[in-house]
Amino acid sequence: MVFNFELNMKLRIITPVLGVKRTNPEEYISKLRKYSGIDEKTELDVVRVEKGPASIESRYDETFAIPSVLSIIKNSLEIDGIVVNCFADPGVNAGREISDIPILGPGQSSMLIASALCDKFSIITILKNIVPELNEHARQYGLQGKLSSIRAIDVPVLDLHNSEEITIKKLIEEGKKAITEDGAEVLILGCTGFTGMADTISQKLGVYVIDPLPTALKLAETLACLKLSHSKITYPQPPKKIIVT
Amino acid sequence: MVFNFELNMKLRIITPVLGVKRTNPEEYISKLRKYSGIDEKTELDVVRVEKGPASIESRYDETFAIPSVLSIIKNSLEIDGIVVNCFADPGVNAGREISDIPILGPGQSSMLIASALCDKFSIITILKNIVPELNEHARQYGLQGKLSSIRAIDVPVLDLHNSEEITIKKLIEEGKKAITEDGAEVLILGCTGFTGMADTISQKLGVYVIDPLPTALKLAETLACLKLSHSKITYPQPPKKIIVT
Amino acid sequence: MVFNFELNMKLRIITPVLGVKRTNPEEYISKLRKYSGIDEKTELDVVRVEKGPASIESRYDETFAIPSVLSIIKNSLEIDGIVVNCFADPGVNAGREISDIPILGPGQSSMLIASALCDKFSIITILKNIVPELNEHARQYGLQGKLSSIRAIDVPVLDLHNSEEITIKKLIEEGKKAITEDGAEVLILGCTGFTGMADTISQKLGVYVIDPLPTALKLAETLACLKLSHSKITYPQPPKKIIVT
Amino acid sequence: MVFNFELNMKLRIITPVLGVKRTNPEEYISKLRKYSGIDEKTELDVVRVEKGPASIESRYDETFAIPSVLSIIKNSLEIDGIVVNCFADPGVNAGREISDIPILGPGQSSMLIASALCDKFSIITILKNIVPELNEHARQYGLQGKLSSIRAIDVPVLDLHNSEEITIKKLIEEGKKAITEDGAEVLILGCTGFTGMADTISQKLGVYVIDPLPTALKLAETLACLKLSHSKITYPQPPKKIIVT
Amino acid sequence: MVFNFELNMKLRIITPVLGVKRTNPEEYISKLRKYSGIDEKTELDVVRVEKGPASIESRYDETFAIPSVLSIIKNSLEIDGIVVNCFADPGVNAGREISDIPILGPGQSSMLIASALCDKFSIITILKNIVPELNEHARQYGLQGKLSSIRAIDVPVLDLHNSEEITIKKLIEEGKKAITEDGAEVLILGCTGFTGMADTISQKLGVYVIDPLPTALKLAETLACLKLSHSKITYPQPPKKIIVT
Amino acid sequence: MVFNFELNMKLRIITPVLGVKRTNPEEYISKLRKYSGIDEKTELDVVRVEKGPASIESRYDETFAIPSVLSIIKNSLEIDGIVVNCFADPGVNAGREISDIPILGPGQSSMLIASALCDKFSIITILKNIVPELNEHARQYGLQGKLSSIRAIDVPVLDLHNSEEITIKKLIEEGKKAITEDGAEVLILGCTGFTGMADTISQKLGVYVIDPLPTALKLAETLACLKLSHSKITYPQPPKKIIVT
Repeated sequence: MVFNFELNMKLRIITPVLGVKRTNPEEYISKLRKYSGIDEKTELDVVRVEKGPASIESRYDETFAIPSVLSIIKNSLEIDGIVVNCFADPGVNAGREISDIPILGPGQSSMLIASALCDKFSIITILKNIVPELNEHARQYGLQGKLSSIRAIDVPVLDLHNSEEITIKKLIEEGKKAITEDGAEVLILGCTGFTGMADTISQKLGVYVIDPLPTALKLAETLACLKLSHSKITYPQPPKKIIVT
Repeated sequence: MVFNFELNMKLRIITPVLGVKRTNPEEYISKLRKYSGIDEKTELDVVRVEKGPASIESRYDETFAIPSVLSIIKNSLEIDGIVVNCFADPGVNAGREISDIPILGPGQSSMLIASALCDKFSIITILKNIVPELNEHARQYGLQGKLSSIRAIDVPVLDLHNSEEITIKKLIEEGKKAITEDGAEVLILGCTGFTGMADTISQKLGVYVIDPLPTALKLAETLACLKLSHSKITYPQPPKKIIVT
Repeated sequence: MVFNFELNMKLRIITPVLGVKRTNPEEYISKLRKYSGIDEKTELDVVRVEKGPASIESRYDETFAIPSVLSIIKNSLEIDGIVVNCFADPGVNAGREISDIPILGPGQSSMLIASALCDKFSIITILKNIVPELNEHARQYGLQGKLSSIRAIDVPVLDLHNSEEITIKKLIEEGKKAITEDGAEVLILGCTGFTGMADTISQKLGVYVIDPLPTALKLAETLACLKLSHSKITYPQPPKKIIVT
Repeated sequence: MVFNFELNMKLRIITPVLGVKRTNPEEYISKLRKYSGIDEKTELDVVRVEKGPASIESRYDETFAIPSVLSIIKNSLEIDGIVVNCFADPGVNAGREISDIPILGPGQSSMLIASALCDKFSIITILKNIVPELNEHARQYGLQGKLSSIRAIDVPVLDLHNSEEITIKKLIEEGKKAITEDGAEVLILGCTGFTGMADTISQKLGVYVIDPLPTALKLAETLACLKLSHSKITYPQPPKKIIVT
Repeated sequence: MVFNFELNMKLRIITPVLGVKRTNPEEYISKLRKYSGIDEKTELDVVRVEKGPASIESRYDETFAIPSVLSIIKNSLEIDGIVVNCFADPGVNAGREISDIPILGPGQSSMLIASALCDKFSIITILKNIVPELNEHARQYGLQGKLSSIRAIDVPVLDLHNSEEITIKKLIEEGKKAITEDGAEVLILGCTGFTGMADTISQKLGVYVIDPLPTALKLAETLACLKLSHSKITYPQPPKKIIVT
Repeated sequence: MVFNFELNMKLRIITPVLGVKRTNPEEYISKLRKYSGIDEKTELDVVRVEKGPASIESRYDETFAIPSVLSIIKNSLEIDGIVVNCFADPGVNAGREISDIPILGPGQSSMLIASALCDKFSIITILKNIVPELNEHARQYGLQGKLSSIRAIDVPVLDLHNSEEITIKKLIEEGKKAITEDGAEVLILGCTGFTGMADTISQKLGVYVIDPLPTALKLAETLACLKLSHSKITYPQPPKKIIVT
């Protein structure tokens, strides 16, 4: 468990889906730096899986992303913290077993931060499909006591950016219902495809809105600064064995 | 959701590990029929993954088994129920999304049956390594209120059959502690590698001992008889998309 | 705890109410065999209490049924499993104390099976009267975490069969509200007077609907096949003493 | 729900077991008045069932006491509050359905008072036999979060008074373990056969010890003074019907 | 822990706010005696803090009342029980540390009594502001499992008596919604400024309505009669030290 | 809720006790910067209350610190985040009501971070006295599900630095018991007087040990970077009113 962090940290985002090629990856990284407020001396890169699903909208999709995510984690040397870029946190628990650095998921990270800010939070996600799985996660993370509801805007991940305006409008609609009907005091955007939309929604609705990817990124940096990482009792090193892939 | 079960059912066990080749697979199936008490007219086959880990002893190992398990589930036509042969229930939740028939895991099945028989049950598993994950599962299944403890005998899966005598002796030792120190009223064997050992332990300790694989098998038949299966709201069909494997 | 099951099992249903005399008991048994899918070689009989209430619609009613239920349990020799035919599970816990075979109630059995199939289930029962008691039972069984709501159709037990059509219509109405307003993913019919109505409702609403009496019956057979029964630590043999009745 | 309490209240204790005839019932009542501190103008009588078990040490025993308890409740006119004299609270819930006055059990009453006084309480009862049932009750009353343990002294009810000295010695022994090993901050005597022993034990162990029968008695008076009783939504009037006994 | 109660008890109410001067304090005490039904021989006085907030409507307000409340508790010699006159229970936990007699808050007292009377209770309080704090209290007291909702009438404390008629009308409106929409079986008035209004509301709505100040008062007398008080393990004597005020 | 963070943040620690004067406050701040890893451009000051207790070791002590803490919070202009320097989090909830910036307590902060790192954490604190209060806090923060135990080393706050060696030795002893007997996977030091001792203990015991003050400090910076703060629904602005102090 002895590890020395360099003064200048290196964080990595693993994108577990094939998605749409980003035309300007530098701009994306630059935005993430701004949203998360990570230190200017902290280096950040984004690595995308080579195999996996186009997008993640089910437990089934996830399983095809995880082996590649784990392979990237395994090969991430001289890195101080990793965030898997999907609200369903695919591969995070398994990844913690094969790594000593903080491996974080946007789902768990934002539920934890939300539970620090209020007594009742709601998640607004993409499709109804994914709601039961997110419910399971809240229970698994021990945070279901503060979860007031999970709502969906009914737009698939790959359509989110067809019209950002419509996406934001729908997030505001469901967010409003979460506040007035379900008693939400803080909202979480339940998909990392919503990155960058939190501010507009927060200003419109007058409550804090958590942007999950920047939140996980900053929390990874925080853990690294505190020289903390996941317990190797909870996430022990897997015994060596033959694996045929 | 309209499906007609033939009078004669067909159940399938998917073995998610490469393990050791069974010298006599017919004998194995014949024993499983006996332990589970499934109907003599119910057909049963065992399908083993072609790719995956030698054994499953961590969340990491699991992830390499799941894609193959799902592929077998997808191709299981004219089958009435499926059990994944590992106490960690790998691929079960994702499998339910792509199938209309009951997909059961030995972990969830035995915890459910235990919670019908008593107020406090303990699980005796292989390695300390796997304890936190099983704890997470109990929480996810909503059954942690009746779980008194999870104990390990500290023997890897592939060594369980080096000396069945020693394995059973260790199970009895830890089971006894679970009863006297943790208040367990029923025991669950926490690995399907223990199949067939429950009776000896039960007679020695004087409490019911649940054998997880036969239990899941019989419960799958039961659900099929009752024409019940997993909710398609909880486990919805994944949206169609490109997956590169 | 040593007991040998005959190859051919014998199950018994104890009807704890005086109710209305069935004109054709053979037909009733034959229907139960079909709904529950129990093995054709499993024998099944129905024994009705000689003393007790006309129907059970309160905790008060129950108490007059229980002594007779226990007396039948006590005298049920060479029987492999017993189901008490009332969703409130009257006499089940006490009966387990004086018997070594599985004694099951339709209430606990269907809540357990529902919790295996989904994350949120609702119960649709007869009268508002009985709702708080069923709520208590869910808590006692440790399954309230998955119970989304209990709704009532406001028809007394003895009127259920005046018009089955109306009863089914009302069950569909309340079931629909449970799904859309309470988030139910699976429904449980909360009275054994509803036996046989589940299929029609399921086809109408598109979710699985659990028929509690057949479910308990099949689960009793399942436990007997697995050579499992209730823990004698949880349900210990009562000390011998004088009882004046 | 309109009822007028006379200035001078009348409370009734229903003893649900045949037990041993008291040689001096006036002395018993006089002691109960002292232990509970009920108002000197409050009248108190004790009515014993004519049918039922010699003692209650199981769920089975209870069921034979309940019909007689309910019959006494039904005929308790011009009474302001009733306590059923057994820690297992037999007939209390059903009795609330047929009565508008407070019907209390020593079990629920003392767990409620304990939860007002501390964060962790333990129950010391008679036999191991009864522990799982009391555990179920704590869960049913919603108070299991503050229950640290239930321990037994292994003496049957009817032997408690063979040697009060030995009984008290054993209560002190188990109470001490509850404090030092289980973290109990307050103790509850888990049988009304222990009535009058709390003070000695409390002085010896230096923690408060709740005497369940006097506690329930005083709480019944308290509710009557506050003009409060059990909710008729939670405990509704049973529908009229034929009951054959 | 040895203390002797005089036959005639003395209870004290500490009013933690400056509020409005009562024109007729004797009449107030006389009403409290009636509502709570405390013994006619029990003496009762009301002591008001000299420093503190005009009213308590936030956690912030509370903190300015507590030092004065504690000072009064410290100087309350020959008193048998104390109630702090505010539903937020300010200073109650700290007060228990410096006192051996029962110190009760109307909030905890009425939630405990409500949980004895039903399965689901709602609180109707003054302002939305205070709802999250009361929610925290229910969780802290371990009673959130029976709390169905907290509603507010949106009237500040000091305006409650401008028009009692309007206040009662609003309490009835919100109480009705708590019953029909939230499933409340018993209501608690969530501010001691509502003292004396419970009866009218109860008669109008047909459910029991708990008046928190009289309830806490009677419960303090009850504990004193039972010679019970708060555990000194849970609320230990603070170590001696310099405090600059 | 519109607030602009300067590029260079300013954090403030409020020390709520009179304690022992620090001989070298610059060195203290410099150590805190190192332990917490806050950005070198983030300014940090420590403000000590002028009135209050010498140390905080009870709920009683706390109440004398809170008014001064709130007064400092109120006057903290152009500050981006505040941490109250005591594991009991005194004044934190009330402070959130009168401020728009993140107000954090070391207790809640470290329990949240611990729950991100493992499934079971233990707290090692100063005196047995404070254990029940910390238990209440865990319940109030909704994190008791992951709390395995709270242990105390039995050394008063003001004696912690008499011999740091002895303090650390005792922390290691109790920490070891927490791991082996209570199943702790991560430890939290339960007093900010332990600041700086975590590393030595962690290296000795081989598990992560959370240092609460640096953790809260870094988490405050993290929230400020993410432009998040406490919900004004959960912690609303107190209504204006007269407060006499």
